[in-house]
Amino acid sequence: MSQSTPLRTDVVVIGAGPVGLSAVFQCGMLKLRCHVVDALEAPGGQLTALYPEKPIYDVPGFPSIPAGELIDRLLEQVAPFTPEFHLSQQVVALEAVAGAESAAWRLTTSRGVVLEAAAVIIAAGAGAFGPNRPPLDRLEAFEGTSVFYMVSKREAFRGRKVVIAGGGDSAVDWAISLSDVAERVHVVHRRPKFRCAPESAARLDQLAAEGKIDLVIPYQLKALGGTEGRLESVTVADLDGAERRLDADVLLPFFGLAANLGPIAEWGLGVERQTIPVTQATCRTARPGIYAVGDVASYPGKLKLILTGFAEASAAAHNAFHDCRPGEALHFEHSTTTGVPGIPA
Amino acid sequence: MSQSTPLRTDVVVIGAGPVGLSAVFQCGMLKLRCHVVDALEAPGGQLTALYPEKPIYDVPGFPSIPAGELIDRLLEQVAPFTPEFHLSQQVVALEAVAGAESAAWRLTTSRGVVLEAAAVIIAAGAGAFGPNRPPLDRLEAFEGTSVFYMVSKREAFRGRKVVIAGGGDSAVDWAISLSDVAERVHVVHRRPKFRCAPESAARLDQLAAEGKIDLVIPYQLKALGGTEGRLESVTVADLDGAERRLDADVLLPFFGLAANLGPIAEWGLGVERQTIPVTQATCRTARPGIYAVGDVASYPGKLKLILTGFAEASAAAHNAFHDCRPGEALHFEHSTTTGVPGIPA
Repeated sequence: MSQSTPLRTDVVVIGAGPVGLSAVFQCGMLKLRCHVVDALEAPGGQLTALYPEKPIYDVPGFPSIPAGELIDRLLEQVAPFTPEFHLSQQVVALEAVAGAESAAWRLTTSRGVVLEAAAVIIAAGAGAFGPNRPPLDRLEAFEGTSVFYMVSKREAFRGRKVVIAGGGDSAVDWAISLSDVAERVHVVHRRPKFRCAPESAARLDQLAAEGKIDLVIPYQLKALGGTEGRLESVTVADLDGAERRLDADVLLPFFGLAANLGPIAEWGLGVERQTIPVTQATCRTARPGIYAVGDVASYPGKLKLILTGFAEASAAAHNAFHDCRPGEALHFEHSTTTGVPGIPA
Repeated sequence: MSQSTPLRTDVVVIGAGPVGLSAVFQCGMLKLRCHVVDALEAPGGQLTALYPEKPIYDVPGFPSIPAGELIDRLLEQVAPFTPEFHLSQQVVALEAVAGAESAAWRLTTSRGVVLEAAAVIIAAGAGAFGPNRPPLDRLEAFEGTSVFYMVSKREAFRGRKVVIAGGGDSAVDWAISLSDVAERVHVVHRRPKFRCAPESAARLDQLAAEGKIDLVIPYQLKALGGTEGRLESVTVADLDGAERRLDADVLLPFFGLAANLGPIAEWGLGVERQTIPVTQATCRTARPGIYAVGDVASYPGKLKLILTGFAEASAAAHNAFHDCRPGEALHFEHSTTTGVPGIPA
């Protein structure tokens, strides 16, 4: 990871979900420049990544709006303030800038981008999304070479001995798809039934009956065999502990996605149960100039609603103003009076 | 004022502005029935009464939305919950219902509607809008008979001796309009210049030159003459105290609108500077089961933004749930899961 020259800005917003975007907007209204970092490859957080077409009913002013459309509208709303997005990367390090005139923070992302800002607004939601990883010894040693959490090219598995683990749609759909190209496909699931579309279940049973897929049920993953990142076998165990050893050169665990705060938990913010305690009125965390808003922020009586996050974002932006412009008075004005650059009145 | 049979409901929302409407929605999502009282003749509060066509830029998801359209959308959003509106009236009395099983309040409106509810959410904004009344002795005695703050029928002033007070558009426009039908029109203004559209000012000067309007400038209202609600004269004074007595049977003071909390200030809620102190996390006031949200609610660090009021409305609704359904657990669910009655997914 090579480090770039630091980029100076007023505020770094961590998380480009709906609340992070509204923080960018609120900062923009106060003439604070923002850079935004998000682990996903597009803004929107859960709303675009998990349920873009699901309607949301409780955003004020929208009797019903698909999650993805809300994000589109928030992106349009922040556009006049030209925030800079750093996507497909996480903030991996946060450190105080020594000797800075005002409180200042240096952040480094997993892609080596370095940002310096007077304030940081963490709108990380439930954290960065990643695959649920099975609790197996030496798992890391095989990840990326023999263990994969997603399939990008089917052809990569031609002639391979594939073990698929999981009982949902991803596991079943990929088993069906890869049964065509792989030398062998084992499907390991800890229950006898699969949680998938009925047509997929029927097709899976048919392929199993034809000997094109081996169903290993009810079994769980137990151990990996092989050396230097080259998988040779997967050991599984049934509920009584009886083991089987499957020849394998690829393991595809499909146990869904989970969110994790990752490095944020190490920043001295008193993270408890994947949330950051803040003072509700200001959204200040335990460290000066660092704010948390949205689902990641906690305080007594907190409601995890998008509209609550919107209000928190505006509180954080108003308080961050003083970190960014120490000594300057913040004259409160309504948007109907100030307008927004580039938006006709 | 005759009193009706009490109407029972879960929650009475005082104020049908954007935040009051969002409180109705949030209550609806928790299956709480609402009645809404507002002094204006239509829902929307300031947004429809004062600036329906003014664009608002800081409601999340709306890069720009005319104030009136935001209200239309909020009305559409609350419609599935069929709230009952009591418009053109104020809550004039609030009393605890003795011996009620749970905390309960009885509210009486200026039109004699009586409501009983387990919880009250005050979303009164800056208060009910009314005319700025000139500080004159015995003013009340003439209001409604000789003193009017708005003109509904021009013909009512045919042949009358009218004194108009004020220097803005309303004063000037009505002076011009009534000069046609009234026997005499005096316009009293404390400055030599009028704050109105240039064309209106020109027309006013022309009518004054023609003797159809008498400009009494710079003068202020000083006293009313007459008996039993029948105005006979208006005494005015210049800045040095020199007085003039104008024959008059109608006075039309046009000093703009102002908001006033009115009776709410007498409810033991500790009103300070026209706001009600609340605990931010719950929006609870000093009295159990009574909540305040939006501009009327105050706490340290409060930002008077519509979006802040939206979040407060949801906090109040969630807490009011326990007043309305004592002992029942509130299972938090996202709107994407629960949906809304009558809105297709």
